[in-house]
Amino acid sequence: MHTAMQADAYKIIHHAVQAVLPGAAVKNALQTIERKPSYVVAIGKAAWKMAAAAAEVLGDDLIEGIVITKYHHSEGPIRKMTIYEAGHPVPDANGLAATEQALRLADKLRAEDRMIFLVSGGGSALFEALPDGVTLDDLMKLTKKLLSSGASITEMNAIRKHISKVKGGRFALRCMPAKVINVILSDIIGDPLDAIASGPAYPDASTSEDASKIVRRYGVEITPEMEKSLAMETPKTLSNITTCVTGNVQLLCESAKEMARGLGYMPVVLTATLDCEAREAGAFFAAIARQIRAKGEPFATPCAVIAGGETVVHLKGSGKGGRNQELALAAAKGMDGLENTLLFSFGSDGTDGPTDAAGGMVDGNFYAACAEKGLSVEDTLENNDAYHLLKEMGGLIVSGPTGTNVNDLTVLLVR
Amino acid sequence: MHTAMQADAYKIIHHAVQAVLPGAAVKNALQTIERKPSYVVAIGKAAWKMAAAAAEVLGDDLIEGIVITKYHHSEGPIRKMTIYEAGHPVPDANGLAATEQALRLADKLRAEDRMIFLVSGGGSALFEALPDGVTLDDLMKLTKKLLSSGASITEMNAIRKHISKVKGGRFALRCMPAKVINVILSDIIGDPLDAIASGPAYPDASTSEDASKIVRRYGVEITPEMEKSLAMETPKTLSNITTCVTGNVQLLCESAKEMARGLGYMPVVLTATLDCEAREAGAFFAAIARQIRAKGEPFATPCAVIAGGETVVHLKGSGKGGRNQELALAAAKGMDGLENTLLFSFGSDGTDGPTDAAGGMVDGNFYAACAEKGLSVEDTLENNDAYHLLKEMGGLIVSGPTGTNVNDLTVLLVR
Repeated sequence: MHTAMQADAYKIIHHAVQAVLPGAAVKNALQTIERKPSYVVAIGKAAWKMAAAAAEVLGDDLIEGIVITKYHHSEGPIRKMTIYEAGHPVPDANGLAATEQALRLADKLRAEDRMIFLVSGGGSALFEALPDGVTLDDLMKLTKKLLSSGASITEMNAIRKHISKVKGGRFALRCMPAKVINVILSDIIGDPLDAIASGPAYPDASTSEDASKIVRRYGVEITPEMEKSLAMETPKTLSNITTCVTGNVQLLCESAKEMARGLGYMPVVLTATLDCEAREAGAFFAAIARQIRAKGEPFATPCAVIAGGETVVHLKGSGKGGRNQELALAAAKGMDGLENTLLFSFGSDGTDGPTDAAGGMVDGNFYAACAEKGLSVEDTLENNDAYHLLKEMGGLIVSGPTGTNVNDLTVLLVR
Repeated sequence: MHTAMQADAYKIIHHAVQAVLPGAAVKNALQTIERKPSYVVAIGKAAWKMAAAAAEVLGDDLIEGIVITKYHHSEGPIRKMTIYEAGHPVPDANGLAATEQALRLADKLRAEDRMIFLVSGGGSALFEALPDGVTLDDLMKLTKKLLSSGASITEMNAIRKHISKVKGGRFALRCMPAKVINVILSDIIGDPLDAIASGPAYPDASTSEDASKIVRRYGVEITPEMEKSLAMETPKTLSNITTCVTGNVQLLCESAKEMARGLGYMPVVLTATLDCEAREAGAFFAAIARQIRAKGEPFATPCAVIAGGETVVHLKGSGKGGRNQELALAAAKGMDGLENTLLFSFGSDGTDGPTDAAGGMVDGNFYAACAEKGLSVEDTLENNDAYHLLKEMGGLIVSGPTGTNVNDLTVLLVR
């Protein structure tokens, strides 16, 4: 591996992740808001870190807070906050009980109070209150039936939002007349605000009519209590909310850009919504690398070509890997022989697929070095086994869990 | 469809193709060379058009010429040229006989003569002379065995070049002591000069030893005559050649760039060697379009983001389409809702897959317009049936055969 460029890559990775750590993101969002007495509800896998940062920024303005996070995700007590751990990705009774406490807190808010609502990925399972007469079991059965009937994710969400006392803007409605500041660490590309954690503090675009149609379309049976719940409209406007997306993949890209510039590369973000097949994205990146090397376009060297997003992998083989490792390995093939060219791709949560690696890193010598050892990049890709090859060749990026998740970053460095 | 942008698109398509038409390409290459008596050998699917242009530029300097093209590709007599038609993609006896005539011409060249060798796609099958004792049938059998044993295209080429009297630089060697000007219309991305038409006038990178090893590796049996032929080294250097790649996908991109600039778009070539899966390339393009629309980066509007290359399609469905149509349709999905955004992709030969269309064109309204008609872009892609949906929606690009082939062009316009 090109050692100087490898060092640059690690600086970019470190800097990019720092900017989207939950603590940094929350501090960034709250530093400029008016100082006044505030309540906090934090939900999601990053809830503890977000709440701890909020407590620090708010100081004596913090009146009371509730944290609902996944099991083993609490890192200890936070002043004036009650911390609950609950089931994820499958919701459980602990989540329901914790959410009831958050609703109790919402109910006592007055017009002069303020709710700071901290949202991170996983919030949809962790933050749930069901309408009277509907059980978790009912909800699970409905979800299963809809999924097996071929309902789309958008259709699923329309149903979920209507069978909930907190989703689809209903939590913000419950906080009225108090104002709600919605601080979001986004793990969905494109930041669809009504979809992140099913949008407890964001107006719902789907209607009762939509929800009923979907149930009829897939011919699934629902209980009378669910039927009643579907008929109750979710809020279409919310006058008491302010929304701040403080950490997302765009910020991850921007932060990578900043460090790349500092290291002397002309940085550019190609996209923050990359969503195609991982290995094809790698091939596309390699095609751009070849053009830069051959023609000095579309960008003059030294340059850093950045993409954020969440690629997909359609598994064919039985190997071990993740989308970032696969993207990098596919790029290695197309970058074969390019000098001073390096590409890396990693998950901001520090975990890529079912592996202990965050992603992969390759350069223009990687492919030939594999061939020299008798290792086939093509066969490895065919078997979805990027992990073992990258490990053997020193191309794994291993960071351990970072405590945040704003999806993936891919960077091509050419100098 | 956005009609003003559609008009821009057609201007770009027309201008780009003009630059790589065989006649224009040859005139461009020959206009600056020294005037002196010249012989011409033209091979490939575009041989007739290239030879006609050469005859026009050379005028009285043309002494004699031979044209070897595919059946039905001659467009009539050319002054001082003998025109042969032969088998493609499977070589036949007519090709062998025509090539013997070209060798006869090569043999009579003196030091003061000049050979202008015009090469286009298809040349490998059309231009062939076999070593004594080797038959076309022998060669076919060997090719079949190697292919079924899993030999790579590079390995196949090493064998082919060593069992030929013209491939792998041997035609240029035969022209000595005369100089050879090698004028190439390239249909292989990246312009690997020793691979285009199997490089009759370009030094061979593969050795006799390589070729023998490959035969042993796959355990295929060959005749004693073939064995003897493999043992004869191809030229590794050629002092009498000048090579000019006059038309290729890079030029197609440059020409598109020129017209886009004239129309007020800031043009940029992302890559001239795009080689990934067509629909994933479309998704990647759409991801870039979203970033341009949302953030004004990586390029400020109005811009034209250009890629040349040859994407691939792995057929799953039974529909009708081509790689360019599939790329455009996949992009339509990701571009849904983007204003003043249009993408088109087409084959420079005017033929995309087994259809009468050259490619496809979509804009940010396309996806919604399909939904309104009850047409599913996803289902269509799943069935590889882009042709019918594009036809229904007015998104087909139909040009008829253009007479050239330098692969495909994809352009994203955002203004």
